[in-house]
Amino acid sequence: MSESREFAVMSHESDIRLAGLETHRNFDPVCVCQTTHSSGNHGQALAWAAQHCGLPCNVIVPRNTPTVKIDAIKGYGADVTLCEPNPTSRAETCAAICSEKNYVYIPSADHYDVMAGQGTIALEFLEQVPMLDAILVAASAGGMVSGIACAAKQLKPEIKIFVVEPFGKDLERCLREGKRLWPEPPQYVDTIAEGIRIQQLGKLAFPIVLSLAEKEVFTTTNAQIVEGMRFAFERMKVVIEGASGAVIAAAMSKRLRRMDGRLRHVGVILCGGNVDIDHIPWLPTREA
Amino acid sequence: MSESREFAVMSHESDIRLAGLETHRNFDPVCVCQTTHSSGNHGQALAWAAQHCGLPCNVIVPRNTPTVKIDAIKGYGADVTLCEPNPTSRAETCAAICSEKNYVYIPSADHYDVMAGQGTIALEFLEQVPMLDAILVAASAGGMVSGIACAAKQLKPEIKIFVVEPFGKDLERCLREGKRLWPEPPQYVDTIAEGIRIQQLGKLAFPIVLSLAEKEVFTTTNAQIVEGMRFAFERMKVVIEGASGAVIAAAMSKRLRRMDGRLRHVGVILCGGNVDIDHIPWLPTREA
Repeated sequence: MSESREFAVMSHESDIRLAGLETHRNFDPVCVCQTTHSSGNHGQALAWAAQHCGLPCNVIVPRNTPTVKIDAIKGYGADVTLCEPNPTSRAETCAAICSEKNYVYIPSADHYDVMAGQGTIALEFLEQVPMLDAILVAASAGGMVSGIACAAKQLKPEIKIFVVEPFGKDLERCLREGKRLWPEPPQYVDTIAEGIRIQQLGKLAFPIVLSLAEKEVFTTTNAQIVEGMRFAFERMKVVIEGASGAVIAAAMSKRLRRMDGRLRHVGVILCGGNVDIDHIPWLPTREA
Repeated sequence: MSESREFAVMSHESDIRLAGLETHRNFDPVCVCQTTHSSGNHGQALAWAAQHCGLPCNVIVPRNTPTVKIDAIKGYGADVTLCEPNPTSRAETCAAICSEKNYVYIPSADHYDVMAGQGTIALEFLEQVPMLDAILVAASAGGMVSGIACAAKQLKPEIKIFVVEPFGKDLERCLREGKRLWPEPPQYVDTIAEGIRIQQLGKLAFPIVLSLAEKEVFTTTNAQIVEGMRFAFERMKVVIEGASGAVIAAAMSKRLRRMDGRLRHVGVILCGGNVDIDHIPWLPTREA
């Protein structure tokens, strides 16, 4: 890393930063609830928030979600429904449950309240480290990036927001051409960072990211993501998931090192630690 | 755990809390230096402090010390010398290097300045969580326990200091009889918590621990230590070493649960994260 560059880390355990639940409760305290599909953080956040507000909650998760995430969601009192590990099954299962139980659907990214909640990460980060010149943040459907970009740019217009993605998401091309170039139906990319495996940015998130984030996107391979995770485990003593590993990989990348030397203070968002500790990516798994 | 009991955690990355280095420098800036044998924290702390003071440093570590600890020590600029993994070889190698290089020997526990430095953990902890009723802390040669007990009891005489040990250390019997009952020469106990494998408390530490710590010692097996480590990795997202896992195991133990209900606020010292991330104890190791 450039010797003139300093890094600050903001670790947010899970995005329990959801606005608007109280509003839902006021609408109809009996039947209104949260249903979501999520690979982890959002599901846990909703489960926690629903419990806090005394609302029932049903979280939809792909069948191959790490047990630790499912247990955490159940631990916060929510029902968990499994779907097939593809975006279409996820959307269908979610719609079926919403219709059957008369639940309100709260997406993990494409929802302005959710983005606003996630934006509080940037508020806290800039409060703690006001001299930040840039923030590196991983994108799944782009809600967290949107919230962070809106909040950070509002407080400090000159700050740069860099998106980190898994290989195959192809966001840089979309941003440079200003278009959604992704194939339909929505797909997952093949990455070990399962928290950010959805390929497309959300319909609400994309224009925000397009207008506020930098066009240079940090694309990370599985090997780089694992290196980032190892670095956090070994030197920072923090258990992080692949999506966070991707951001550390970006922080350690040649691309960042070669960037403008005026980017002196770089903020790194560690977006979660939902890794299955029985499946650490650099170690073999115990035989069943 | 008892529902009426709350836990606070103090995580100290490594005991870079060493007093007295400046004093050594003033004696003789050319030849005075630090030599120590240590399984990790103390070696890193000395290496860091020596570099900070511009002094050469030689750290003696047992041959089976995890690579991550050795790399960290070298990373702080110290020379590393390997010894056989037993206390006698450790002491002999250390004495030889001290004599050959004219270095000052700074033990990892039996040294009042080191204890004083480690006692600052308790100062910080009680500053952050003044309502602590008890502190759980792991003992190797007892320096950290001594420092923490002195500082904590000075600030809050009614606080209870409970020692956590690996199975085989037999400290409770020594404390109850008020005698050093350990066999000579000093031995290592068979534990996965290699940071606390030395059986005997130091000559200076023992009387302090005897007079200030509780007689009830929390003895932990390997299985309990691993469970404690897993809990930290999975739910706290912190990478900890076996010695810290032992303390979490004590915090989760039946023995603590059955103790006086007036112990409401229990402080847990996580003394380090020097675990070899290629050898996580609940996972198989990759074939070479």
